[in-house]
Amino acid sequence: MKVIAGGVTAPKGFLAADTAAGIKYQGRTDMAMVYSEADCTVAGTFTTNVVKAAPVIWDRDVVVKGGSARAIIVNSGIANACTGKEGMDICDATAKAAAQVLSIRPEQVCIGSTGVIGMQIPKDRIVEGVKVLSTKLESGEEASLRAAKAIMTTDTVHKMIAVEIELSGKTVTIGAMTKGSGMIHPNMCTMLCYITTDAAITNEMLQKALSASIQDSYNMISVDGDTSTNDTCLALANGLAQNPVIDCENEDYRTFCEALDYINIYLAKKMAADGEGATHLYEVIVNGAASKEKAVILAKSVVGSSLCKAAIYGKDANCGRFMCALGYAGVVFDPDLVDIYFESAAGSVLVVSQGSAPLFDEELAVAVLSEEAVTVRCEMHEGEATATAWGCDLTYDYVKINADYRS
Amino acid sequence: MKVIAGGVTAPKGFLAADTAAGIKYQGRTDMAMVYSEADCTVAGTFTTNVVKAAPVIWDRDVVVKGGSARAIIVNSGIANACTGKEGMDICDATAKAAAQVLSIRPEQVCIGSTGVIGMQIPKDRIVEGVKVLSTKLESGEEASLRAAKAIMTTDTVHKMIAVEIELSGKTVTIGAMTKGSGMIHPNMCTMLCYITTDAAITNEMLQKALSASIQDSYNMISVDGDTSTNDTCLALANGLAQNPVIDCENEDYRTFCEALDYINIYLAKKMAADGEGATHLYEVIVNGAASKEKAVILAKSVVGSSLCKAAIYGKDANCGRFMCALGYAGVVFDPDLVDIYFESAAGSVLVVSQGSAPLFDEELAVAVLSEEAVTVRCEMHEGEATATAWGCDLTYDYVKINADYRS
Repeated sequence: MKVIAGGVTAPKGFLAADTAAGIKYQGRTDMAMVYSEADCTVAGTFTTNVVKAAPVIWDRDVVVKGGSARAIIVNSGIANACTGKEGMDICDATAKAAAQVLSIRPEQVCIGSTGVIGMQIPKDRIVEGVKVLSTKLESGEEASLRAAKAIMTTDTVHKMIAVEIELSGKTVTIGAMTKGSGMIHPNMCTMLCYITTDAAITNEMLQKALSASIQDSYNMISVDGDTSTNDTCLALANGLAQNPVIDCENEDYRTFCEALDYINIYLAKKMAADGEGATHLYEVIVNGAASKEKAVILAKSVVGSSLCKAAIYGKDANCGRFMCALGYAGVVFDPDLVDIYFESAAGSVLVVSQGSAPLFDEELAVAVLSEEAVTVRCEMHEGEATATAWGCDLTYDYVKINADYRS
Repeated sequence: MKVIAGGVTAPKGFLAADTAAGIKYQGRTDMAMVYSEADCTVAGTFTTNVVKAAPVIWDRDVVVKGGSARAIIVNSGIANACTGKEGMDICDATAKAAAQVLSIRPEQVCIGSTGVIGMQIPKDRIVEGVKVLSTKLESGEEASLRAAKAIMTTDTVHKMIAVEIELSGKTVTIGAMTKGSGMIHPNMCTMLCYITTDAAITNEMLQKALSASIQDSYNMISVDGDTSTNDTCLALANGLAQNPVIDCENEDYRTFCEALDYINIYLAKKMAADGEGATHLYEVIVNGAASKEKAVILAKSVVGSSLCKAAIYGKDANCGRFMCALGYAGVVFDPDLVDIYFESAAGSVLVVSQGSAPLFDEELAVAVLSEEAVTVRCEMHEGEATATAWGCDLTYDYVKINADYRS
């Protein structure tokens, strides 16, 4: 597997465009289109929030009906959630406008929205935006970069990646872009993530690969514990790489899955590190848990603790808070077996040994916690299961961003 | 029922004392003692955190053994959690020192600690503190106030209350003090709460009353979602009011429970309003839920949401976040039935109507959210069940307090 330049337009036959449609933001792009020259198989995973945004309901239909997809239209600024029938009408109008200008069917159009909940999208502007986007479609790295920027909200950096793999002698490319910074605690999937590939793969196998891959990537990150109404991860595969169609769990499938995992973990970590107001990427590794399920629950509890996050921000080796967060996770374990290490590029410090705090080198601990990427490794000594979760620290800026967001 | 002045020393036969023992803090009191002149029945509820502080294990033993209690010793500054065998030795030494100077048995001594986790309490200082406390025991309002202040950590106000009730013609008094500001998300009980009464009531009925009362009070508050290692709520009843002993669910029991509920809800709200960095008391009422259990889960989800808490801080009527937090609570409901109101002394605004955001008076909404106590009322329209939860807003100061705390 080779990481290459570019994002969603890296695979053969995918074009992208962006525009400033004035949906809510002024003076920046706020709409993106991804288009495939050939029909795509499509897979998707969506938020488990009971309150689902209109585009989530729309895309789920596209995926469930198992049809083909050709385009993705995304807007930032307004989430089109809690918008009732009017919100579904917006999706319908968007898909119909795209179908007309791209000469495809409305049910081949996927839709994504992100931004404020409870506000209506101006229909005329999004329809006009679709028309403009269709005239600006381009291949190449630049186009994927502009699309990745257009879907950002409070994100401070764009997030995209592309990799090349070889399947049965054919070069296959997978590209992806994602956005997400606040209201990030995915459960089934992340905020918005769009994966494109020229691999030939059936709907069923693409869905299987995607559903497995999000478990250890997007479902293991948390910025603030708030599971969004809009979480969507879509994968489109147009087959232009001309590899033998992947229709079972063969060697090609495994190679494809490995590349997909690489992409999703890369983007999940990017998203966690770019959490609203974040100054640290905060990684929690749980080793030696009695089961995978317990490892996941423990890692998520520690990565989501406000007090642990504040300690990471303060570079404060307040080890008791990490034991405390393991303790209230809802999993039974023996506290007297637990060791905890703080680790980063600056070194490793044992801060909890067999459940108690030993004397440790405070100066080294501060140095370890001063690095941009910090790992808290919890050794449970109860079994073989392991899990890794990613989050960020809790800072003044998180509060500032979210006390001001809507206005 | 009549609210009267005072706290833990209001009931007959209870004395209190405070001292500056230099456990960790300098220049302030950090130890309190509560003492009853007669043997007490005793009830307690404790943290569900797997990682339990040494004094929690100690007190649970006192309660489980169903004996009598005579004294409570509390220190602030160090939590005596994650302290291994040495931590239990500290409890043992504390109880033995108290038993000696008070001429009682060590197993009649309850112990509480609050502060930093993972640090050892200097044994000589706490033992010396116990000796000093025993010489300063006093009755009266002033003594209870000083005790309530000595157990504070990041609290900005002390929290105590006393009420008088009549049981079968006898005047019975109940007093209480509590502390708690951060690491507040009680599960079975709050941080530290000590209730004293001169009622005559059996261990069994006292435990029954206490266990029921905490469900709708301390178990419904959250400051930061972190369930402490030290949560303890103890009730001591010395019987000096000479009412007929409460030994079944009679009229006196119900009167006693009502007073207990009043005290615990009063103190729970005080604790939520004094959450670390808080500028608002944030109340969430869920009405019309399909079951009590669902109502509780929904109310706790909304009161615990970082994004909702930040919106309250910003006086931002960002109604979508509240729908979102209902949606990810883990309870199935029909979003299209939900109405949400923002309410306070300044008025009431409907901000979600049948699942969508209507046009509402933004100016009034800002006025409503500018009051110190703000209520978000969610009408589910699915049944008759109701629940109320209390929390506070998420502010810069929460981050500041917790990025600096240990150092």
